[in-house]
Amino acid sequence: MIDVRVALFDVFGTVVDWRTGIADAVRTWSAVHAPTRSDLDPGDVADRWRARYQPSMQPIRDGSRGFTTLDVLHRESLVDLLTELEIDADDEAVDALNAAWHALPPWPDSVAGLTAIRELMPVAPLSNGNVSLLLDMARNAGLPWDTILGAQVVRAYKPTPESYLRTAELLDLEPERCLMVAAHNDDLAAAQACGLRTAFVRRPLEHGPGGADPGPTGDWDVVVRDLVELGAVLARTGAQTRRS
Amino acid sequence: MIDVRVALFDVFGTVVDWRTGIADAVRTWSAVHAPTRSDLDPGDVADRWRARYQPSMQPIRDGSRGFTTLDVLHRESLVDLLTELEIDADDEAVDALNAAWHALPPWPDSVAGLTAIRELMPVAPLSNGNVSLLLDMARNAGLPWDTILGAQVVRAYKPTPESYLRTAELLDLEPERCLMVAAHNDDLAAAQACGLRTAFVRRPLEHGPGGADPGPTGDWDVVVRDLVELGAVLARTGAQTRRS
Repeated sequence: MIDVRVALFDVFGTVVDWRTGIADAVRTWSAVHAPTRSDLDPGDVADRWRARYQPSMQPIRDGSRGFTTLDVLHRESLVDLLTELEIDADDEAVDALNAAWHALPPWPDSVAGLTAIRELMPVAPLSNGNVSLLLDMARNAGLPWDTILGAQVVRAYKPTPESYLRTAELLDLEPERCLMVAAHNDDLAAAQACGLRTAFVRRPLEHGPGGADPGPTGDWDVVVRDLVELGAVLARTGAQTRRS
Repeated sequence: MIDVRVALFDVFGTVVDWRTGIADAVRTWSAVHAPTRSDLDPGDVADRWRARYQPSMQPIRDGSRGFTTLDVLHRESLVDLLTELEIDADDEAVDALNAAWHALPPWPDSVAGLTAIRELMPVAPLSNGNVSLLLDMARNAGLPWDTILGAQVVRAYKPTPESYLRTAELLDLEPERCLMVAAHNDDLAAAQACGLRTAFVRRPLEHGPGGADPGPTGDWDVVVRDLVELGAVLARTGAQTRRS
């Protein structure tokens, strides 16, 4: 029995397929902005962009840089990567590719799964993405969030304790009434250390066919193969709709 | 032509009928907790509770008190009012009545109007209500918000400039790309002074039959009789869906 009142979701990799979305955007973009670069592997470009993601937030987590949105960090990483790839692009072209993070495709089960879970309790992203990114993504992909939460709202990046604890506080819930849902063990470990309940979602294709698939390595409350299964598990274990 | 990318809504009085909701809750509650008090007029109790609303936020607006949620302020006002009414109630009973703000009924046009406007652009409350209050209300009333914004998220109560400007910043929008929708001239005047566009919604019954109905007194971009009409006006004037 998991007595939780809200389900909070990691987004990149858990709800949306960032690698496919970014690789597709790189393919379309490079045909226009780097037409001679047939050597580019869009999946590899996506991986190298994403590899800059965790390091880009570190100065903000450790307090050496003020809070800066993920859109800005993504763009800084992209400028750096384009330099490394020896691709010249003007500001407008860089902005256009950076916007790809606002329009990532959901995994096939995400909309149906979130819709089912939303029948039981509110659903919200607890993502490092900024509000406008997550809002655009939700409208593009049809993600039925009750509200959008995350790093920008609480001004703290995951996996700092503040990111989870301030989110629970904003919802007037004890941490143990919050379920953190993610495909990443480190995110769940940090949430669990703050007292949240945890659900691991298997996403073997997050890093592409043949990419790394660590699987669950912690003592998570629930392990599921997708969000539709999570909805079924929560319904079966009697998770309650929040009633005032 | 109004070129806006998001519609932000005042909630109490504009989207929900607080007076009817609170009066109904007072009627039900007093039958249990003050059964001998047939002298109580539920509408009058609602008005007296609501009369403490603006003063309760003033110390926070002027910086003499740290940010405190509206649930807490509502409760403090209620304790004060019950003392004035000479009604004894234990904490649990006070909490139960205070929760009525989480379950206020929408005006008859609100759900249809918001649903239509949401086809054009994201819709969100910009309310002094706290997140859990607005989230519960949305689920109780079926309000189809894209996300929940407001005083608690930006830690500033309307009508301070920060409440509007930080909300626009959170959405990565210039203030003039935001439409503030309210039944209250003071809210719209403050939003307009910050550069937001404004829509006045007539709510002649906000203060009950025979209650005050000031009507629009400022130079608002749009004046409508309800949210369904606002949806039609925005569709006609070419307001755009936000696209990334």
